[in-house]
Amino acid sequence: MSATRIETDSFGRIEVSGNALWAAQTERSRRFFAIGEQTMPLALIHALAEIKRAAAETNGELGLLDPVKAEVIAAVAARVAAGEFDAQFPLSVWQTGSGTQSHMNVNEVIASLASQALGGGLGSQRSVHPNDEVNLGQSSNDIFPTAMHVAAVLASTPLLAALADLRAALQAKAQAFAGTIKMGRTHLQDATPVTLGQEFGGYAAQLSIAEQSLRHALPAVHSLAIGGTAVGTGLNTHPEFAARAAHKLAQRLGHPFKVADNLFAAMAGHEPLVALHGGLKTLAVALTKIANDIRLMGSGPRAGLGELRLPANEPGSSIMPGKVNPTQVEALTMVCIQVMGHDLAVSLAASQGQFELNVYKPLIAANLLDSLRLLGDAMNSFREHCVEGIEVDAARVQALLESSLMLVTALTPHIGYDRAALIAKHAHANGSSLREAALSVGGVSADEFDRWVDARLMLRPQ
Amino acid sequence: MSATRIETDSFGRIEVSGNALWAAQTERSRRFFAIGEQTMPLALIHALAEIKRAAAETNGELGLLDPVKAEVIAAVAARVAAGEFDAQFPLSVWQTGSGTQSHMNVNEVIASLASQALGGGLGSQRSVHPNDEVNLGQSSNDIFPTAMHVAAVLASTPLLAALADLRAALQAKAQAFAGTIKMGRTHLQDATPVTLGQEFGGYAAQLSIAEQSLRHALPAVHSLAIGGTAVGTGLNTHPEFAARAAHKLAQRLGHPFKVADNLFAAMAGHEPLVALHGGLKTLAVALTKIANDIRLMGSGPRAGLGELRLPANEPGSSIMPGKVNPTQVEALTMVCIQVMGHDLAVSLAASQGQFELNVYKPLIAANLLDSLRLLGDAMNSFREHCVEGIEVDAARVQALLESSLMLVTALTPHIGYDRAALIAKHAHANGSSLREAALSVGGVSADEFDRWVDARLMLRPQ
Amino acid sequence: MSATRIETDSFGRIEVSGNALWAAQTERSRRFFAIGEQTMPLALIHALAEIKRAAAETNGELGLLDPVKAEVIAAVAARVAAGEFDAQFPLSVWQTGSGTQSHMNVNEVIASLASQALGGGLGSQRSVHPNDEVNLGQSSNDIFPTAMHVAAVLASTPLLAALADLRAALQAKAQAFAGTIKMGRTHLQDATPVTLGQEFGGYAAQLSIAEQSLRHALPAVHSLAIGGTAVGTGLNTHPEFAARAAHKLAQRLGHPFKVADNLFAAMAGHEPLVALHGGLKTLAVALTKIANDIRLMGSGPRAGLGELRLPANEPGSSIMPGKVNPTQVEALTMVCIQVMGHDLAVSLAASQGQFELNVYKPLIAANLLDSLRLLGDAMNSFREHCVEGIEVDAARVQALLESSLMLVTALTPHIGYDRAALIAKHAHANGSSLREAALSVGGVSADEFDRWVDARLMLRPQ
Amino acid sequence: MSATRIETDSFGRIEVSGNALWAAQTERSRRFFAIGEQTMPLALIHALAEIKRAAAETNGELGLLDPVKAEVIAAVAARVAAGEFDAQFPLSVWQTGSGTQSHMNVNEVIASLASQALGGGLGSQRSVHPNDEVNLGQSSNDIFPTAMHVAAVLASTPLLAALADLRAALQAKAQAFAGTIKMGRTHLQDATPVTLGQEFGGYAAQLSIAEQSLRHALPAVHSLAIGGTAVGTGLNTHPEFAARAAHKLAQRLGHPFKVADNLFAAMAGHEPLVALHGGLKTLAVALTKIANDIRLMGSGPRAGLGELRLPANEPGSSIMPGKVNPTQVEALTMVCIQVMGHDLAVSLAASQGQFELNVYKPLIAANLLDSLRLLGDAMNSFREHCVEGIEVDAARVQALLESSLMLVTALTPHIGYDRAALIAKHAHANGSSLREAALSVGGVSADEFDRWVDARLMLRPQ
Repeated sequence: MSATRIETDSFGRIEVSGNALWAAQTERSRRFFAIGEQTMPLALIHALAEIKRAAAETNGELGLLDPVKAEVIAAVAARVAAGEFDAQFPLSVWQTGSGTQSHMNVNEVIASLASQALGGGLGSQRSVHPNDEVNLGQSSNDIFPTAMHVAAVLASTPLLAALADLRAALQAKAQAFAGTIKMGRTHLQDATPVTLGQEFGGYAAQLSIAEQSLRHALPAVHSLAIGGTAVGTGLNTHPEFAARAAHKLAQRLGHPFKVADNLFAAMAGHEPLVALHGGLKTLAVALTKIANDIRLMGSGPRAGLGELRLPANEPGSSIMPGKVNPTQVEALTMVCIQVMGHDLAVSLAASQGQFELNVYKPLIAANLLDSLRLLGDAMNSFREHCVEGIEVDAARVQALLESSLMLVTALTPHIGYDRAALIAKHAHANGSSLREAALSVGGVSADEFDRWVDARLMLRPQ
Repeated sequence: MSATRIETDSFGRIEVSGNALWAAQTERSRRFFAIGEQTMPLALIHALAEIKRAAAETNGELGLLDPVKAEVIAAVAARVAAGEFDAQFPLSVWQTGSGTQSHMNVNEVIASLASQALGGGLGSQRSVHPNDEVNLGQSSNDIFPTAMHVAAVLASTPLLAALADLRAALQAKAQAFAGTIKMGRTHLQDATPVTLGQEFGGYAAQLSIAEQSLRHALPAVHSLAIGGTAVGTGLNTHPEFAARAAHKLAQRLGHPFKVADNLFAAMAGHEPLVALHGGLKTLAVALTKIANDIRLMGSGPRAGLGELRLPANEPGSSIMPGKVNPTQVEALTMVCIQVMGHDLAVSLAASQGQFELNVYKPLIAANLLDSLRLLGDAMNSFREHCVEGIEVDAARVQALLESSLMLVTALTPHIGYDRAALIAKHAHANGSSLREAALSVGGVSADEFDRWVDARLMLRPQ
Repeated sequence: MSATRIETDSFGRIEVSGNALWAAQTERSRRFFAIGEQTMPLALIHALAEIKRAAAETNGELGLLDPVKAEVIAAVAARVAAGEFDAQFPLSVWQTGSGTQSHMNVNEVIASLASQALGGGLGSQRSVHPNDEVNLGQSSNDIFPTAMHVAAVLASTPLLAALADLRAALQAKAQAFAGTIKMGRTHLQDATPVTLGQEFGGYAAQLSIAEQSLRHALPAVHSLAIGGTAVGTGLNTHPEFAARAAHKLAQRLGHPFKVADNLFAAMAGHEPLVALHGGLKTLAVALTKIANDIRLMGSGPRAGLGELRLPANEPGSSIMPGKVNPTQVEALTMVCIQVMGHDLAVSLAASQGQFELNVYKPLIAANLLDSLRLLGDAMNSFREHCVEGIEVDAARVQALLESSLMLVTALTPHIGYDRAALIAKHAHANGSSLREAALSVGGVSADEFDRWVDARLMLRPQ
Repeated sequence: MSATRIETDSFGRIEVSGNALWAAQTERSRRFFAIGEQTMPLALIHALAEIKRAAAETNGELGLLDPVKAEVIAAVAARVAAGEFDAQFPLSVWQTGSGTQSHMNVNEVIASLASQALGGGLGSQRSVHPNDEVNLGQSSNDIFPTAMHVAAVLASTPLLAALADLRAALQAKAQAFAGTIKMGRTHLQDATPVTLGQEFGGYAAQLSIAEQSLRHALPAVHSLAIGGTAVGTGLNTHPEFAARAAHKLAQRLGHPFKVADNLFAAMAGHEPLVALHGGLKTLAVALTKIANDIRLMGSGPRAGLGELRLPANEPGSSIMPGKVNPTQVEALTMVCIQVMGHDLAVSLAASQGQFELNVYKPLIAANLLDSLRLLGDAMNSFREHCVEGIEVDAARVQALLESSLMLVTALTPHIGYDRAALIAKHAHANGSSLREAALSVGGVSADEFDRWVDARLMLRPQ
């Protein structure tokens, strides 16, 4: 193959590497947007290819595209969607805000592959047209946001699975720790007792609320901009094209995709993706609280709370046993903060549409897909390498509980508020246990103390 | 009434203004938190009073509280909830993070009022106890978040009404402008035509998506922390107290309030409020886009787009007629940015819970209630003083449309791409209209041009 | 005084309350912007009045304004600046984005006061013109941002004083705690020892860095937009007006105010205020870390770290002594999060200027002034009611230190890594102290242990 | 080379790929942190290698490290710093929050390379120890933040160059457009005239303010944590080590690096990096305004403002000439929003330190370095492919200016306010020019109009 070849578009001729399957428009973007190193997410490229496949099949069925070409385009699009040609998508995220250039990249690569499959060549020998055939009845302005929704839905599946798995792991711990009575803490100060199981059950419940928030956001993301073409009116597309193509996507990918009720809103606004990312932010909020609690309970080994023993996956200190850095907590909480930053970026970007188009689409796609991936991976890592291996230091938990002055409230019904307060004050002043103080102050026998001061009776309404 | 009196709590004696209905704990907070000028939102104070009313009734029914006292407490709580004693709640938002001090402020004021109603006095003469009676079976840690939810739900009603009204006003304009064909714009560049009605219909659709996001968030906010008391276990509350009190709140306030499934999550996490505010942020995103479009279409009067005439509510210039500053747009877009800031604050605050309590509650309440109020008011103002009075400058819209080169696409099926492009190039080079250029270049007659170049045919799939 | 009177502007007649000193333009805004309850910050109103005073004096000197009127306007403006007429400024923050309406509010009130002082009346009897005389040589577009800068600089003075006082208080504690050796912690895990003084010294150093960031931001805020009038060109102002007025402001207010180098940038961009608020955000970041550490060290009294005793300003529990909720920490950390939200709002708003004007000015002013006030107040409160009263629990600190396994590193040079690790492992497995384990494992005598394991030798490079 | 080999650390044995130069600790992290695809920024890896080089030289000089080994370690570190072994750093950003794992990755790779250079092998044959020799006198806790500062300073150089180039390009346009008088706009409404040069001069001035903000932030970043070792005390490092190593870094890299005044603050807080990123955010704010103005002035070609012609780098429409999508503006404004998101992430992360360490370091490094790179690249791209090629459409600018009604203000001094207003009203009502209206209304001759209504006289104070 020659080192370079000439490609042409309405702007004229341009030299392209002989190995590249892309054509002129991709090449122009490659040269004019040398910004950073992040390329358009492959999840989005694959979604675009899935749409190309469905579009070619639809156009074939509607008699708008030569049936042989339709079949070949669909076939090579399927291979692109499967990731076979990932190296052919070199464009930066930081390109035109409509994503047109990456969209044309997909059109051009598919046209090249189809041309080759049909015995044609590249450049002036290309026998399949990227615009007139691969992009028939479509426009970047409806197809790129369609791909954003398709990619987001597909990426939500592993995220939700990771979330369910983590919730289940926390719930399993809640059951395992149901009998472990410990010091409750409010304001980070000693409070009345709870069980460790109640705490872990609370974590699982926080995740459930976040999950509901995510699940509620999905239906709007199933609605696709396809059929709007350049400005939302559907100019130059067949009246049945959009619904048929959306149906194919739904069938093949197993999600209830459909054409959006209002295509103008679907191209110029991105509220469904803002709301979906809002769900991710809510999840990040919950995970931050959970992870921070576990970090605190795992602090020590000697001068911390020391209630939990976290799995040691790597040396925390080369000499000191028991120093287990909560590295999984750290990775997870960093991811949560990154998701907060992404949420801001997605929201700002979505607010900046003008008239028929929002031109911050690549940013929205990149941040949303990154958040979905990072949260899913980090939850899996946290679950597998931390939560599932958490053990309780029962002796330590019990010692802290017994040291508590808050249990004094259990004496009040029996000896009155004033004497109970006296006992607590005595214990505090002398650094003694409540039991010692009670016996020293008097008014309660050892036997009575042990009967009355029973944390097990403080765990629910009576 | 004497100038001051002495109040007492477990910390000892403290002097309080003779006119104040509050007692020692409020007074301590008043002195120790001289931070800014913002006091705890009255909407929250009123919600706390509604809860006190329901709690007193419930405790009366359960035989836990003297029936006369229960009735009197409920009665004065109703007056506090109605706003009769707003001047008695002087505490700063920036106080203890549990909101305990404002909660005690409510308990103390209600106790004072009830005492007076029963013929008692204040200070050592107070015959109703703020903790033992007004707060019976409750704790700040469950009641303050309960009030946050109640206040948020109540404040959502006018917000949703304002949203529905604005959507209806935009939809009415969509119908009124259904026949106004205008230049579409993508990348802020001329594109194929749309109707002004399609644009306004798109705005209405964006608001619908945001509204769905808000409505999905409400059920989790109907779930209340009540019954958890100090740490979520429900220690010191009657097993039936929470469900009965929540039922009363639901009945009286007309919203489906119920006890949360998991009280630990409800006190230590605030995911439901994060999700609700996420819905407000999504709404702010949509409103920003809509308002910015209207600002752009109203730009001029001479050197802007000039497609819309916005109502003139105040002089934009003392001498120049037609200069109408889009002041309602400006107020609305400022509010939207404020809501973005609040969304961040609420999310960060909600992520910082520790163990059994999140201690950023006053901040969350203040920001959430402010966003609800500001967005509702700003939407009403924008609708009434801007949207409803918008008129189209039909001549200007038509002139811009006719000047367009994008209509050249309508010639392609008839005279081919090459000649059509030639005509467009000629028009661009000479600054002439497409029609002039077509007749000058030739290949199309005046009659054909007028027949073929018909923007009305470009508004939907054919 | 009659109940109402008629005021007139270029829009026509409007009825105004007889008690109001404002005129038509204020009244229109009052009616058209019923959004929320927050009024334009008085600090900004006062700054506007200071500018009016300087402007009147300058116009008098330049012979542009009748000297008697100039003197009277300056005199009443001084009274407005001193806060004598605060009730006359009822307008919402959420108004026109240029702040014109509050600016006219100031012009109108001063004109009314000056008219009265000169024996005239209000309405049609007003003998001083709000625009032609009070606003002579000025425009909202240059004067409102000038007032934003003046107000911000004035509000920075107490903020910086509060910052210096807090840093000094922390530094004083650093000296007081210089001899308290304690467990260091990284990853919230036990690490090698530090002194409590080193920790507090670190806090003071963090504040110094934040202070530098703030001080670096101030010079750009000393630069004023005055003289730009409507679009930055200075149309309709005397060539010497701006410099003379700025000089008067500098002299009177004691800050090096001057006319900005580029007036277009000063009206359309707000980078100096973004940078100043960025300094406040940096301060909030530092304060969050410091406050969180103090909260952690004060956790307990029994089941927390318990290294510090925080001042008890209010009961943390009605029965349990020693339960001191870190309420000052909570107020401060809430303020810090609010400042983060404000920083976002200010930054977004500042980015949205168009051509010759940014129309998010009231939002920027309100958020910036709020942050300055809240941080200043909260630092003072935290210092006075928390930091200054912090005491160390020396026994607890010592006990935690002695329990540490990290001190094993001190043995390595003497008995080798392998034996040292063996001792640590033994201690960890048996829950014993390092000393006990060393004597049990052998290879080191009690005397040697006490000589070698000396935390005092681990506090600096050797 | 065998397919795998065994590496060992204090945790035991682990299998590593035979091609890998890393050892056990890197391998553990690789397995336990499968989160996303983003690896630790190479700029940070290279900075770590520079520090290793300086450290080895310093330890050699101080006689702490064998001189031959010191020389060899320094030599291979230089090659790592030059990017020769980039494939050897596979670890995720989302790892331990101290960055220890990537730091050990660098230590291990350098130890392997040094061992090989000295004739040794890998695994148990490694003759240079990653901890005891490469990391001598260092700890992740001081060295990782040192590398963050070094990398940030190095990355600031191209950023500041790009900023200076863009400012110069805008300034050059300001001079080129100094004579182009155009319609000023406030509130996006027609206002009095300005020159296009004044507008571009304003843009350059906005960038200067942002640049000052960045330059003020750098000195604090020159201060390095080196010498603090594990907790800030400098335990286990030679008293002269830090200053000597910092001096070497300063000499070699050409920036005034020095040891931080307070090492505790430098490890546990990251205020200097927050302030630096705050400068980047300020820059993003300025760039957003500038880019949006250029987008608006380039809107059209027919139905927009059309004052500027932006360079056409790619087809905006395959058929319509003159449709130039502002793609460089779009890429730049997307980058600016990303930087806002990053600013939030960096700030949150920096606020979450605990005691002697902040464990969000990899996130801070990744976001800061990304922002520096993206803004630099995007400014270069915007300058080269957009700003430098901007042309003014002089005829359009002139036509808009002449159409203006705002020029009526120039008539007031000559014919009085009332008649001037009458003329403006007439022109507005009839859609005529001001000149036509003036002649029609009367009171001013054609000659007088042309003399008096001269925009050139409205461009500065008179």
